[in-house]
Amino acid sequence: MRPDDANVAGNVHGGTILKMIEEAGAIISTRHCNSQNGERCVAALARVERTDFLSPMCIGEVAHVSAEITYTSKHSVEVQVNVMSENILTGTKKLTNKATLWYVPLSLKNVDKVLEVPPVVYSRQEQEEEGRKRYEAQKLERMETKWRNGDIVQPVLNPEPNTVSYSQSSLIHLVGPSDCTLHGFVHGGVTMKLMDEVAGIVAARHCKTNIVTASVDAINFHDKIRKGCVITISGRMTFTSNKSMEIEVLVDADPVVDNSQKRYRAASAFFTYVSLSQEGKSLPVPQLVPETEDEKKRFEEGKGRYVQMKAKRQGRAEPQP
Amino acid sequence: MRPDDANVAGNVHGGTILKMIEEAGAIISTRHCNSQNGERCVAALARVERTDFLSPMCIGEVAHVSAEITYTSKHSVEVQVNVMSENILTGTKKLTNKATLWYVPLSLKNVDKVLEVPPVVYSRQEQEEEGRKRYEAQKLERMETKWRNGDIVQPVLNPEPNTVSYSQSSLIHLVGPSDCTLHGFVHGGVTMKLMDEVAGIVAARHCKTNIVTASVDAINFHDKIRKGCVITISGRMTFTSNKSMEIEVLVDADPVVDNSQKRYRAASAFFTYVSLSQEGKSLPVPQLVPETEDEKKRFEEGKGRYVQMKAKRQGRAEPQP
Amino acid sequence: MRPDDANVAGNVHGGTILKMIEEAGAIISTRHCNSQNGERCVAALARVERTDFLSPMCIGEVAHVSAEITYTSKHSVEVQVNVMSENILTGTKKLTNKATLWYVPLSLKNVDKVLEVPPVVYSRQEQEEEGRKRYEAQKLERMETKWRNGDIVQPVLNPEPNTVSYSQSSLIHLVGPSDCTLHGFVHGGVTMKLMDEVAGIVAARHCKTNIVTASVDAINFHDKIRKGCVITISGRMTFTSNKSMEIEVLVDADPVVDNSQKRYRAASAFFTYVSLSQEGKSLPVPQLVPETEDEKKRFEEGKGRYVQMKAKRQGRAEPQP
Repeated sequence: MRPDDANVAGNVHGGTILKMIEEAGAIISTRHCNSQNGERCVAALARVERTDFLSPMCIGEVAHVSAEITYTSKHSVEVQVNVMSENILTGTKKLTNKATLWYVPLSLKNVDKVLEVPPVVYSRQEQEEEGRKRYEAQKLERMETKWRNGDIVQPVLNPEPNTVSYSQSSLIHLVGPSDCTLHGFVHGGVTMKLMDEVAGIVAARHCKTNIVTASVDAINFHDKIRKGCVITISGRMTFTSNKSMEIEVLVDADPVVDNSQKRYRAASAFFTYVSLSQEGKSLPVPQLVPETEDEKKRFEEGKGRYVQMKAKRQGRAEPQP
Repeated sequence: MRPDDANVAGNVHGGTILKMIEEAGAIISTRHCNSQNGERCVAALARVERTDFLSPMCIGEVAHVSAEITYTSKHSVEVQVNVMSENILTGTKKLTNKATLWYVPLSLKNVDKVLEVPPVVYSRQEQEEEGRKRYEAQKLERMETKWRNGDIVQPVLNPEPNTVSYSQSSLIHLVGPSDCTLHGFVHGGVTMKLMDEVAGIVAARHCKTNIVTASVDAINFHDKIRKGCVITISGRMTFTSNKSMEIEVLVDADPVVDNSQKRYRAASAFFTYVSLSQEGKSLPVPQLVPETEDEKKRFEEGKGRYVQMKAKRQGRAEPQP
Repeated sequence: MRPDDANVAGNVHGGTILKMIEEAGAIISTRHCNSQNGERCVAALARVERTDFLSPMCIGEVAHVSAEITYTSKHSVEVQVNVMSENILTGTKKLTNKATLWYVPLSLKNVDKVLEVPPVVYSRQEQEEEGRKRYEAQKLERMETKWRNGDIVQPVLNPEPNTVSYSQSSLIHLVGPSDCTLHGFVHGGVTMKLMDEVAGIVAARHCKTNIVTASVDAINFHDKIRKGCVITISGRMTFTSNKSMEIEVLVDADPVVDNSQKRYRAASAFFTYVSLSQEGKSLPVPQLVPETEDEKKRFEEGKGRYVQMKAKRQGRAEPQP
């Protein structure tokens, strides 16, 4: 991990870790999908399941990324990726992240054509059944979120501190050759890195301290982003708890040189950030003040996700008799 | 702004800011030139007007770049770009830079063909007339500078400190994919970043302190630089005032793998640098010792530009009755 | 491997591979040197043994880098690194590179102090004895080359094609944070990548075709390059055989902001390049025309290395009865 991978306090950006995770996932799933004779293909990221950043990684540490294929449906591959951080001076190793990604194989001859996935061999029979359940659950959720993301982030003049408008941020990025696969669409990991960057700016503007990514909600990639697009990544805060902030990030692709194609929503997700003191302890965050009806609605939805997640975590930590 | 965008003292390189400015200009002008049906095109940078760096930007700050089309001629687009730096911890915002850029739309089918620009709609009628004047003025200056840049930077053995030869520097750069647009020529912003890098090394060699870009003279792009070229960027000091250094930077392109084409001058400009103490105050600079007739002539020309610019600035600061 | 790692023909730069090799070596040797309690340290590259690029790597392939500690002396670590390329579409794997690197542990408190290396455990006893021989041999060679590289690359006006002056090239590079370890000196891999870049430009200027690195002579790092230096990397062709070019690359560090320190030679090596047709076959190269006495002397020395290496290779291929 190098200085450019980290924020001023030396904590590696969540986006850098997401990018590594996606690179590992893309390699293992492309390899698997080409393991039988037949049409050559490249694996495109379709979805990343909700993931927590369990411990921070710092500049100078070595990241170990390992990936395994855990399920295949007819047209998709599920990959489990683990990230460990190693301090090579002290020898300490820590689990940083566990993530689950879904890939879809696209034909090299025609990247709009989805190919079939060779079936994976399971060591235990239950694995297939468990995988199928995860597959069905994510398919359902993908469909739901497709409709959720209608609106866009509107700029507001002279916003008050602690409002949504005060911290909301957008960045535009002209897609270049090194952002893309050989087949002319943007790596999922590149998009996620930019999403985390915007979310981080929103969080820092809101609470004006050192902030780090705590978790990322499932990210759905509704459509490929092609070479030559300009992408707009917008972030707005949706909810704050005592010690965390939820930021919604929307990715829109705009094919500037191709008049025939309209701007489209390419991806969206919720990032959760926490604020850290100089000693690395989590700090209280200023409470968000939702103003419009939409903002109040999104705040309540965010609270719902927060309460649900907290319950899930407590459920795991203190198993019921 | 990341560690790599800045020098050892934490000040963001002028070249990094120029690169962002150009990216914004290229996006907005490419979008405008493709806004009507007709042949698809990409906007290529032709000229950047003289621009001052009004206040330094630091690592960790967020840069806001906004761009607006202010004039169109038949074959060119004028873009005004403003850069603000925001310290997201304190909320302080400062104007860093105002720049004016000229773009020319090149056909995607044949990048040697210039297309027509759709006319922009002006909100006030005077805007068109004022724009036309700026257009004529820059056209005239472009022609003049085309002839100015005959010579090259000649190396000298064992130079004395404070002479031109002592600090002059050249770097070669093999153009790579990420330096280029999708259509195979180098982004103007990439060239400007390299120009600033060389100017900064010349300035640092001369005064051996922390140095920052104060302003850049108009930069004319005489010709596109294509993928696969080696570019040589050479800088030499032309003039010093008490607290500033003027450095001429010349860009030559050499199509190494294409025997049929000769080396050509692609761009040139004057950069002004100042030397800063550790507290950020401007320091006196060692006086340049011109040795040859050419160096003495260039010193006097530099002095002329310096005096003229100083008069202009005072004229603005203290308006005459 | 991404577009930026490769030349226009899609072959990954030798320098990119050298950089990965060094990264692996630095990680494994830093980890080993900190494996016992005591003063914390970071491993600095001291030498890379001669290495051949056995088969080209292409954009889109996955590089597998594995490293192993093969010998330790009191103050140095020998690391063996292997690089495989994997085409994840076809499943083909090829050995690209085998390299041997020597590292020295520097104290984190004082990077000018060399610490002791914990001894490695050998699985066979001969390994220690063989390692000691390699250690003694490289020590001897390091001393010899220290004195060889007195001279610098002198520029020449209007050189003739095929002469040394015609293709010789220099680049200057201002050392930035991402070039450096956390302890403020440049990664050996970064230096090697720049060396390969200059050698490649010299080779391309000489033969104006697609060129690739075939091998690199032992590289000795005489001294650390510190943050804030400007480094000058110069390359000149020394010898051509029918189908290969030998280029000498010299690295000089110039501590621009520190007046007390003089410019010093930091590293040097010979790179061998071959010219490839569009089908990937090796092409004849234009013969180098040495002009000065020094150039003729260097040509003969290069011929000596070429003949010796060819004999060694044939010796390996057809072992003597």
